[in-house]
Amino acid sequence: MIKVGIVGGTGYTGVELLRLLARHPDVEVDAITSRSEAGMAVSELYPNLRGHYDELVFSLPDAERLGRCDAVFFATPHGVAHALAGELLERGTRVIDLSADFRLRDAEEWAHWYGQAHGAPALLGEALYGLPEVRRERIREARLIAVPGCYPTAVQLGLLPLLEAGLIDVEHVIADCKSGVTGAGRGAKVPSLLAEASESMKAYGASGHRHLPEIRQGLGDAAGGPVGLTFVPHLTPMIRGIHATLYGRLTGEPGDLQALFERRFAAEPFVDVMPAGSHPETRSVKGANVCRLAVHRPGDGDTVVVLSVIDNLVKGASGQAVHNLNLMFGLDETAGLDAPAIMP
Amino acid sequence: MIKVGIVGGTGYTGVELLRLLARHPDVEVDAITSRSEAGMAVSELYPNLRGHYDELVFSLPDAERLGRCDAVFFATPHGVAHALAGELLERGTRVIDLSADFRLRDAEEWAHWYGQAHGAPALLGEALYGLPEVRRERIREARLIAVPGCYPTAVQLGLLPLLEAGLIDVEHVIADCKSGVTGAGRGAKVPSLLAEASESMKAYGASGHRHLPEIRQGLGDAAGGPVGLTFVPHLTPMIRGIHATLYGRLTGEPGDLQALFERRFAAEPFVDVMPAGSHPETRSVKGANVCRLAVHRPGDGDTVVVLSVIDNLVKGASGQAVHNLNLMFGLDETAGLDAPAIMP
Amino acid sequence: MIKVGIVGGTGYTGVELLRLLARHPDVEVDAITSRSEAGMAVSELYPNLRGHYDELVFSLPDAERLGRCDAVFFATPHGVAHALAGELLERGTRVIDLSADFRLRDAEEWAHWYGQAHGAPALLGEALYGLPEVRRERIREARLIAVPGCYPTAVQLGLLPLLEAGLIDVEHVIADCKSGVTGAGRGAKVPSLLAEASESMKAYGASGHRHLPEIRQGLGDAAGGPVGLTFVPHLTPMIRGIHATLYGRLTGEPGDLQALFERRFAAEPFVDVMPAGSHPETRSVKGANVCRLAVHRPGDGDTVVVLSVIDNLVKGASGQAVHNLNLMFGLDETAGLDAPAIMP
Amino acid sequence: MIKVGIVGGTGYTGVELLRLLARHPDVEVDAITSRSEAGMAVSELYPNLRGHYDELVFSLPDAERLGRCDAVFFATPHGVAHALAGELLERGTRVIDLSADFRLRDAEEWAHWYGQAHGAPALLGEALYGLPEVRRERIREARLIAVPGCYPTAVQLGLLPLLEAGLIDVEHVIADCKSGVTGAGRGAKVPSLLAEASESMKAYGASGHRHLPEIRQGLGDAAGGPVGLTFVPHLTPMIRGIHATLYGRLTGEPGDLQALFERRFAAEPFVDVMPAGSHPETRSVKGANVCRLAVHRPGDGDTVVVLSVIDNLVKGASGQAVHNLNLMFGLDETAGLDAPAIMP
Repeated sequence: MIKVGIVGGTGYTGVELLRLLARHPDVEVDAITSRSEAGMAVSELYPNLRGHYDELVFSLPDAERLGRCDAVFFATPHGVAHALAGELLERGTRVIDLSADFRLRDAEEWAHWYGQAHGAPALLGEALYGLPEVRRERIREARLIAVPGCYPTAVQLGLLPLLEAGLIDVEHVIADCKSGVTGAGRGAKVPSLLAEASESMKAYGASGHRHLPEIRQGLGDAAGGPVGLTFVPHLTPMIRGIHATLYGRLTGEPGDLQALFERRFAAEPFVDVMPAGSHPETRSVKGANVCRLAVHRPGDGDTVVVLSVIDNLVKGASGQAVHNLNLMFGLDETAGLDAPAIMP
Repeated sequence: MIKVGIVGGTGYTGVELLRLLARHPDVEVDAITSRSEAGMAVSELYPNLRGHYDELVFSLPDAERLGRCDAVFFATPHGVAHALAGELLERGTRVIDLSADFRLRDAEEWAHWYGQAHGAPALLGEALYGLPEVRRERIREARLIAVPGCYPTAVQLGLLPLLEAGLIDVEHVIADCKSGVTGAGRGAKVPSLLAEASESMKAYGASGHRHLPEIRQGLGDAAGGPVGLTFVPHLTPMIRGIHATLYGRLTGEPGDLQALFERRFAAEPFVDVMPAGSHPETRSVKGANVCRLAVHRPGDGDTVVVLSVIDNLVKGASGQAVHNLNLMFGLDETAGLDAPAIMP
Repeated sequence: MIKVGIVGGTGYTGVELLRLLARHPDVEVDAITSRSEAGMAVSELYPNLRGHYDELVFSLPDAERLGRCDAVFFATPHGVAHALAGELLERGTRVIDLSADFRLRDAEEWAHWYGQAHGAPALLGEALYGLPEVRRERIREARLIAVPGCYPTAVQLGLLPLLEAGLIDVEHVIADCKSGVTGAGRGAKVPSLLAEASESMKAYGASGHRHLPEIRQGLGDAAGGPVGLTFVPHLTPMIRGIHATLYGRLTGEPGDLQALFERRFAAEPFVDVMPAGSHPETRSVKGANVCRLAVHRPGDGDTVVVLSVIDNLVKGASGQAVHNLNLMFGLDETAGLDAPAIMP
Repeated sequence: MIKVGIVGGTGYTGVELLRLLARHPDVEVDAITSRSEAGMAVSELYPNLRGHYDELVFSLPDAERLGRCDAVFFATPHGVAHALAGELLERGTRVIDLSADFRLRDAEEWAHWYGQAHGAPALLGEALYGLPEVRRERIREARLIAVPGCYPTAVQLGLLPLLEAGLIDVEHVIADCKSGVTGAGRGAKVPSLLAEASESMKAYGASGHRHLPEIRQGLGDAAGGPVGLTFVPHLTPMIRGIHATLYGRLTGEPGDLQALFERRFAAEPFVDVMPAGSHPETRSVKGANVCRLAVHRPGDGDTVVVLSVIDNLVKGASGQAVHNLNLMFGLDETAGLDAPAIMP
């Protein structure tokens, strides 16, 4: 059994890791930390876990104890992994960071968007952006993984085939994204109250959002050069789910787009290209580590529309983190990740 | 008092007309028809109206009785107003049609999108598309009004200033729209069940939707020529509300977009240009006849983003219908339409 | 015009007062206070009010300014009205308190449930519990009104006819109540997040809730002696609405319960006894100052079941407060309160 | 591998069976039938199952084909299992019926509540009511199981300890139950639309509901005599979940109720007695085959309150059906049923 630790286990990505790992045949959760809830049983905070992990108690973060794990997940706000990751790597523990700490390769850009200096620039050379559909083989060898963000995962998977094939105008890509409220985390903020966020829809960050540089970096890798992206995220009254609606302008006759997408992801266990004409629903991926895609070309014109849905807590966070773990430790890629979505 | 009739009063736009007219100082509902519920009291079907309209009972549609009204609203599926409008106009009754029957000026295009021949082509010359922000003066004189659809209202109001000023590439306009479920009407369909539509988000009609030609016609009027529009509607888990996110490519230096929008709508009682940097929420217009707009230019680049929200049942249907009535009968424009939105 | 002030206007009962008073023909809001938002325009915090109250700005609480109003509403947490009410009464300003400060006649019991000493016991003799259906005439003369709580309003109105007629066992009354989340206020608390409260249902306070003594006091008044009540509130995933399901054991043959209820409330403008066999929905009162009731006697047995629904923010708070104002100032009882509920 | 068939697989209990069985180590779904969707792939109707069951197609019901299965689940409206169960039993196939067809032991009472004659009275002697917590050993030997209804499961589990111990007045038991909308099935009915059922709460069937006789029968078995029950179900705006709030009057000093409940269910894998003072949330069981209970005695008075939550589609239907299968075929009781609930 692989022994793992979780730092910052009280948030939504933390409890989702626990839910997924409860069914993982090869992994055992050895330690879970929380500054605010140290001493509390995880099943007290998350009663859905009663009967699972009955002995597991939140402890204060402790590098020595975490260093005895084979791998440690960070399910923390930004900044925390900066402080601890280096010490864990020195102790031989691999690090899978669900936060934004190591997603941008450029420390300056990170500092610009997060409003503070990067806390571990020396590790940036080693950190690997863990999108398995792009760099599966390098993940197998990695020691420090930056798990992609939720919006970036949905957007990149939907645009990769078009950018890799050079089919669209890279200067004018639009990503109109809709997210459930767990994307904003478990913090107690007025705009996230049911009374405020339910029965309503709104955009936010239309003039600039922290996921923008991460998406641009990933799209740029696929395109082989800078990509001009307009990214508008929206808050949607649901708990889980991201729906990315992606617009590109075709620069020529693209051929069979459906076949292009199917070919690109044929070997991918967690990307599902739906039949032509489909409109994937976010509920079809609720609780499951899968991205469903559909590609449209309205009126056979020069605009291509890609619809991409994920569960932000699974393929957009904890499930993708487990996928990285499976790759890093030579396990079956789908171990712990093979349950169907729950619907209705 | 102006006497009005409502044809097809059992649907959501019908009950919303009743709710709004209950507070209208100058209007009295004289007749309401329904084929399926004839004989039932309206307050039995809609208990929110108990204590209001206690004498009002659904009757079978009857041109003679309706013809004694000063004006008749059609809150019906398409095709019904085709059959009745001509006879009512002959009797001197003005017609305000909330359905799609008279929205397109071209009978051929109507037939293409609705899959049946247009039932009253002779009236198309007289029918007026009732968007008050564009043709207020002509509405005052009109006898037959086609009330704009919900998506078309939100999209047109958001794009008018840009198109009228010639600031964007008219061949590549994108409208990514999100609607609550009442947009699909009160029909009992599986995809509209709470168990199916809640906790989920999906696009539909990505390859072509009936509101597309209506929007193109309206945008074309503003631009003075054809507009190439990609329109992708989405179903959102909320009862009311439309959020249109509109993307245009600036063809030159646009000047002060905020000032442009404020100027365009300065005299409009039902369009609210929010302060620069705003993100309007659909809940801020729930139950109210108002469209709130915000304009963004991310990174001072060449893409302009307009956010436009309405209540699909009010500014997107019944409220706009009452606004037209007020104009046609020389009443205060805001009569019956001056209540604030309900929030939370 | 009657000039009113609102203390603590940033919460949900505050904005609901503003929404209702915007349509009130005889009232003008002269001052609104908030410690946290002083200096901000109300329409900035509540964009649904844009176009209404455009000059109204939150100010710090100031007894002199408030004392120039004819009446002041307190829409505050408990304890605030204790501190200010006396001074306002001395200045000749009437006080309508939506908080719990003056609802219990017994200062000791208040201290027990609220965990602090009562801050204005000298005013208890003058404070009047403002349930118009019970003490309309005394309200007309009152200077200090304690507006009933939301649960207490729904429960008392449903049980009054049975208790006044002496038909049920007063030692074993059960009130199983379900509330939308605005009942918990606008405070940023984790359990009120959409991600926590949506798609779920739970009881709370099953062993004792602060509304229990208030309900017992009111039921005791109706019964002419102590009432043994089991009260279990539940949190329901909706924004507004209370559904009280009330169970009593009949002590004899009760006669025609439907007629009893209709008679009891025949003259009440804001209580609607629905036809026999009905099941009122909370949405049928959304935004409206009305309580709808239905009475059932399953299997003609010895248990009577009353179903009682209100909008917690209107008949359960701000609407009832305006009703009290109307009575106190000799206005039409329904002024500002005559709009139908919004449905769907 | 045990080969199973599912009759009526298009409804919510059908798709939930498929979701649970996808992870069952010892079971294979061999046939699934639907009159309306014959010929369609299950993953076309339920895209959450894409990647699972990719070969499974709905077929017309066919006794011969079903008769080759080891067991057949009926996930059908009432009446269907009556017609087919006998023939399957003759072929040696065991039957697990999720419908109401065999839940009542008295054919007359069944006919009274379902408005039609019982279609298979000869099988009533053999049919076993499959509540494992009451008759586990007999289930192991059974050939025909009536899976308990959702409300009956939540109510019985909550009251069993009290009734078996003879602690409450059996003539006056109250079950106030709240259900998510999937309890009403996947039928396209107006009251189940999101636009109708969301943001609202209502009781239904207050004067008599079909689950009443089933609950009375089960409670009577536990009490050793007739039980007088008042049962009021409510519709709650959520997809899944039942919350039963149960009220009994103690007939004497009950001793330690918490210990009584813990003892009664100590050996049960799917009943979780929560710590004293708890209030279980329905979301804590979403997707999981578990009933969580809490017992309260407000003010140490003579009323006991039990809070009982289940997922209506799992412990209230398909999960309990799989539990029965596991028992009937000598499998591990928790096989296929060991995943934690999904939260948030």
